[in-house]
Amino acid sequence: MHKSRHQFSAIKKEGLYDAIYKRRDVREFLPDPVPKDVLARVLNAAHHAGSVGFMQPWNFIIIQDEKIKEGVYQNFLSANQQAAQRFSGDKGDLYNSLKLEGILESPINICVTCDSSRLGPHVLGKDTIPETDVFSTCCAIQNLWLAARVEGLGVGWVSILNVNQLKEGLQIPKHIIPVAYLCMGYPQEFLDRPMLEKTGWAKRIPVEELIFTDLWGNKPERD
Amino acid sequence: MHKSRHQFSAIKKEGLYDAIYKRRDVREFLPDPVPKDVLARVLNAAHHAGSVGFMQPWNFIIIQDEKIKEGVYQNFLSANQQAAQRFSGDKGDLYNSLKLEGILESPINICVTCDSSRLGPHVLGKDTIPETDVFSTCCAIQNLWLAARVEGLGVGWVSILNVNQLKEGLQIPKHIIPVAYLCMGYPQEFLDRPMLEKTGWAKRIPVEELIFTDLWGNKPERD
Repeated sequence: MHKSRHQFSAIKKEGLYDAIYKRRDVREFLPDPVPKDVLARVLNAAHHAGSVGFMQPWNFIIIQDEKIKEGVYQNFLSANQQAAQRFSGDKGDLYNSLKLEGILESPINICVTCDSSRLGPHVLGKDTIPETDVFSTCCAIQNLWLAARVEGLGVGWVSILNVNQLKEGLQIPKHIIPVAYLCMGYPQEFLDRPMLEKTGWAKRIPVEELIFTDLWGNKPERD
Repeated sequence: MHKSRHQFSAIKKEGLYDAIYKRRDVREFLPDPVPKDVLARVLNAAHHAGSVGFMQPWNFIIIQDEKIKEGVYQNFLSANQQAAQRFSGDKGDLYNSLKLEGILESPINICVTCDSSRLGPHVLGKDTIPETDVFSTCCAIQNLWLAARVEGLGVGWVSILNVNQLKEGLQIPKHIIPVAYLCMGYPQEFLDRPMLEKTGWAKRIPVEELIFTDLWGNKPERD
């Protein structure tokens, strides 16, 4: 049998690649609710990421309570006030003009956490690189993001938050790591390029510049 | 316009969901080479993950040199000897029966790294949670894994490695984090379920058990 007998049909490949290329970090949402069956599909997709030692270290806190969202929003505001001070001049003006979250507008917020204690003290594949549980959780988040995209849902990752305050607000136990705080809902639009690229905040790096051969720094021959 | 106007067609959704559900951590490979255009598509998919502050902190070291692969394999062997000691009795026997890497058999190994210094000392969204650059790199890895799957390629993540030794072997600078060491090639097969589930190493957790409402520990009403 042919080596690539497991490849997908052209249209199904396109489904995956379109999800990857049309996914955006969304910050502007419509108020429309997310149907339960759609949310279930997106969470189940996240849950089917691979994980070190089949540990499945993630949990998903689905936040819809307005008071809790308001607390997270206040957390963002104060963290962002500090973060904004890192940028001055034109960059500072641009920073302040950017909308960096959609906590209150989005119908659903999701905190994705990592429980390093799941499966006990020794997990296959994790002893030498303990952070692999968090890495697995991030793979689950990417699955969630892509599944949301094919469902027509936007997701935005809010990382301008004080983590201890977030844990307190969501009553997350000490040993649990909140890896991502996500806003999810139907978006006003999906931009054709990332917002930070469109606004000139940073440039897309040509992928060839990021590829090495055999050793760090070794450039491949061009072709 | 309808709120979900951005959703994909049924068959394109299926492309994404099939990639997610049929992706496996592959350790048994055919020797067939990976065509350059296929590799390019997979790496470009990785490069189009979102990243904190549009930082694109990743690099991809494509390893095909047999001597370098042999060095990584020796690294695995010694790390695995130590790791195996964590499990005894039946669990130890099972551990020792598992094939946990495909470093030498796979035609391509890929080390995916994270450069925390990219874009300078202050990156939008990263100041409050510095690890977000590594999180972004993991999202890129999941894109790579899913793109490989639709191309009929298997990917296996080897985490049983001494990181310092790996950095030395690949001449990775001190400030660069090797996030994942991946083996890639056409697989002997894609298992219908994860190998660690099939062999009874660990069980799939029902996804409902992982979902909370508003606060940690709050179980949603069932429906």
